[in-house]
Amino acid sequence: MAITLGELADQVDCELRGSRETVIETVATFSGAGPNAITFLSNAAYKPQLPDTRAAAVILKPADADDCPVAAIVHDDPYACYARMAALLHPALTHQPGVHPTAFVSEDAVVSKTAYVGPNAVIEGNAVIGDGCEIGPGSYVGPDCVIGAGTRLLANVTFVRAVTTGQRGLIHPGAVIGGDGFGNAMTPEGWVKVPQVGGVKIGDDVEIGCNSTVDCGAIGDTVIGNGVRLDNLVMIAHNCRIGDHTAMAAYTGIAGSTTIGSRCLFAGKSGAVGHITICDDVVVTGKTMVTKDIDTPGAYASSFAAEPAKDWAKNVARVRRLGKLFDRVGDLEKDKS
Amino acid sequence: MAITLGELADQVDCELRGSRETVIETVATFSGAGPNAITFLSNAAYKPQLPDTRAAAVILKPADADDCPVAAIVHDDPYACYARMAALLHPALTHQPGVHPTAFVSEDAVVSKTAYVGPNAVIEGNAVIGDGCEIGPGSYVGPDCVIGAGTRLLANVTFVRAVTTGQRGLIHPGAVIGGDGFGNAMTPEGWVKVPQVGGVKIGDDVEIGCNSTVDCGAIGDTVIGNGVRLDNLVMIAHNCRIGDHTAMAAYTGIAGSTTIGSRCLFAGKSGAVGHITICDDVVVTGKTMVTKDIDTPGAYASSFAAEPAKDWAKNVARVRRLGKLFDRVGDLEKDKS
Amino acid sequence: MAITLGELADQVDCELRGSRETVIETVATFSGAGPNAITFLSNAAYKPQLPDTRAAAVILKPADADDCPVAAIVHDDPYACYARMAALLHPALTHQPGVHPTAFVSEDAVVSKTAYVGPNAVIEGNAVIGDGCEIGPGSYVGPDCVIGAGTRLLANVTFVRAVTTGQRGLIHPGAVIGGDGFGNAMTPEGWVKVPQVGGVKIGDDVEIGCNSTVDCGAIGDTVIGNGVRLDNLVMIAHNCRIGDHTAMAAYTGIAGSTTIGSRCLFAGKSGAVGHITICDDVVVTGKTMVTKDIDTPGAYASSFAAEPAKDWAKNVARVRRLGKLFDRVGDLEKDKS
Repeated sequence: MAITLGELADQVDCELRGSRETVIETVATFSGAGPNAITFLSNAAYKPQLPDTRAAAVILKPADADDCPVAAIVHDDPYACYARMAALLHPALTHQPGVHPTAFVSEDAVVSKTAYVGPNAVIEGNAVIGDGCEIGPGSYVGPDCVIGAGTRLLANVTFVRAVTTGQRGLIHPGAVIGGDGFGNAMTPEGWVKVPQVGGVKIGDDVEIGCNSTVDCGAIGDTVIGNGVRLDNLVMIAHNCRIGDHTAMAAYTGIAGSTTIGSRCLFAGKSGAVGHITICDDVVVTGKTMVTKDIDTPGAYASSFAAEPAKDWAKNVARVRRLGKLFDRVGDLEKDKS
Repeated sequence: MAITLGELADQVDCELRGSRETVIETVATFSGAGPNAITFLSNAAYKPQLPDTRAAAVILKPADADDCPVAAIVHDDPYACYARMAALLHPALTHQPGVHPTAFVSEDAVVSKTAYVGPNAVIEGNAVIGDGCEIGPGSYVGPDCVIGAGTRLLANVTFVRAVTTGQRGLIHPGAVIGGDGFGNAMTPEGWVKVPQVGGVKIGDDVEIGCNSTVDCGAIGDTVIGNGVRLDNLVMIAHNCRIGDHTAMAAYTGIAGSTTIGSRCLFAGKSGAVGHITICDDVVVTGKTMVTKDIDTPGAYASSFAAEPAKDWAKNVARVRRLGKLFDRVGDLEKDKS
Repeated sequence: MAITLGELADQVDCELRGSRETVIETVATFSGAGPNAITFLSNAAYKPQLPDTRAAAVILKPADADDCPVAAIVHDDPYACYARMAALLHPALTHQPGVHPTAFVSEDAVVSKTAYVGPNAVIEGNAVIGDGCEIGPGSYVGPDCVIGAGTRLLANVTFVRAVTTGQRGLIHPGAVIGGDGFGNAMTPEGWVKVPQVGGVKIGDDVEIGCNSTVDCGAIGDTVIGNGVRLDNLVMIAHNCRIGDHTAMAAYTGIAGSTTIGSRCLFAGKSGAVGHITICDDVVVTGKTMVTKDIDTPGAYASSFAAEPAKDWAKNVARVRRLGKLFDRVGDLEKDKS
């Protein structure tokens, strides 16, 4: 979508140094930007490339503005400013309201007149689809689900049952929300399934990535707070509570009944065991597994980084021989005394 | 579903101390239970709350029964008893038999008259759908699949081809069963795909979680035993054999041709490399990777727990300096002698 | 499909010692092969079973040919030869061209007359489906996707938008290609979504496993080279570049903007952080996380193997006490001097 620099600056409420009339058509990378594009300078490492930019305008911090050879959009947080301008230039694809003739909507479902239900989507009884929602092609909305206004389920999303979402959610393809939690009681005859009768409650402005799964509660609900961001292939088990604005990168796995605070960051392949509580503002580094309560904000880690396999094998062997090393040091200390 | 206490006790075959006529409508948590609910006391940590329960009845062990202020359902295994009563109070959602008009069923498929085939489901040629099966909306049952009586594929499940299941299976949304194993032969011109011509054989009473994948065998079948429980995002590679009643939590990954015994437990993010054998009754802790045969039942581990990142960084640095530490201790020992 | 040994040998261009007329119907394992089957001897461990084989023919190396009691197909690389013969004997299931009446194809899409579009598949506007392509049941091809000739999307695959593939691709069920990358800018009001406006470019002869996800670029494209092989549940984040013929086993996760060379091998549950570069011919072992650039081919590792949990707990405790051990050794050294 073509927008003038002036309009972009007005809408995102930031200072423009340059012509308001310049028309912008796209965002671009710092090195790839042409005369119809805006780009941004957030990472100081790219500063040396600033004089050579061919962009129409650069979003940058006040301290960098004087060095900008083209129009400057000045903002204390260039990346957030970029995000907002990119949303104006590249609005999300949306559809005309209406139910596609190949979709199946139960007679007992309520679908807003302003909602879109795509080809081959299925909406079961007792589901409620709010204003401006989009239920993408092949998606399934099971019984007793309530989808808040403006929430979009892209293609092939599955809401199993009893999932309630807030407004403006974005659920990516392959995500499965409200599947049964993993509840089994061992008996002499084998596992007995523990029925999972709770639901899932999702706040406003939540985004859930491709092929992620959020299970329903065993009893009571699994709760995802406002503004939570889940990447692809994330797993939230039954009865977890994820605090507002917490973000979890791919493969983050949270076991059952764990409560996580607000504004936490889980890096890729990290996770937490069940039945623990993690406070606000905790950062969990990549591949780290949290095994007990955390009540102090800060960063937590438990993983090793790759080394050449030969060197690593020596580390492993040394760790295995640590018991003997402790003994040897003990012997030396005894001899000394 | 409303059921009297007497009927619940009869059906699950356990002792009731209290009025048989009390009507129960739901299960509830210990603290959330009201007068229409049963709850259970399994974990001693909750015992102090027992006197204050507002539940209609509590399922508990004989030793706790005298302290129960309301009706007591007495059983040696309250959790298993709870699971069975919950199944009576909250029966799984089922559908009327019949093929939905939007479903596509190949002329060469055989679908029991008592089976349900949901909206937009697809059943290919040579597939057999047994009595009382449910093939949920958007699910795909490929050629040469045989689905045993009472097995339910919830929405958007994919059975690629040559998958045979036993009875009473439950397959959650997004699961993909019978996809090609990862077989590739390297050549000077790049990878050559190794055709995966085997199938998948699944026993009775198996549950497979959301977005999990079980690949077909390269030659011969991948085998999932009776009563196996797979959580979400589990991966079983080609030609694995998983023993009866083994349970695997989310992200458990088993590489190709590995054989796993009965009643094993794999915690989240654990796994095993390919071409090994693990005996019965092995417990693999979270994030642990089994790399060779295990022939002794018991617990196995290889993961570290999260620590504050600064402390962890010191551990990592020390492990890296272990070689030098061994040398220093060796020098001290030499000096001594 | 029944084929004579002579024809198999001709088509794969290798030496046959035995009757050209013998009819082969199937491949089989070394121990399971009967008189209508070929098998192969690649791993020397199986050599002792060679005299007892009941196969019609064995594919083996020149050095083993004299010991073969049945027809011998002689090739320097028996496994690759097997792969090619198996593809002849067990050709991939294909469909008649045409659009199934239950599929939905946008008026603005272009679908080759020789392509197959299965039941309940959906093809959006501006998509192009090449000659001989197969868009399987329940699959979704979003706007601006271009599918190269002969590429097959099996059931329930999702191409979100702006995905371009080369020829002869094979995409397994549940895979989601072109979903939004995980781009978020933190602000005082919470996360602001960073629009993901790039696409995905996939080379020729690429195979992507069940429930894997490849995100679109934030700006510019995510790139998957020719001949790349991704197993199930793999995650490729936005703007990654994966070199030709690189293979990644299940759960391999590559964070954003990382570039990986050609012919790399990532074992199960391995991965790499974002914004790094890994050169050609790197092998990353199971569960290993690469955290910085690698510019030397070879194997890299960072994981421990399972031990009995008691032994492992001692290792963990010793690592935790390493700081003190370093101090004690320092004290001993001081005393000595």
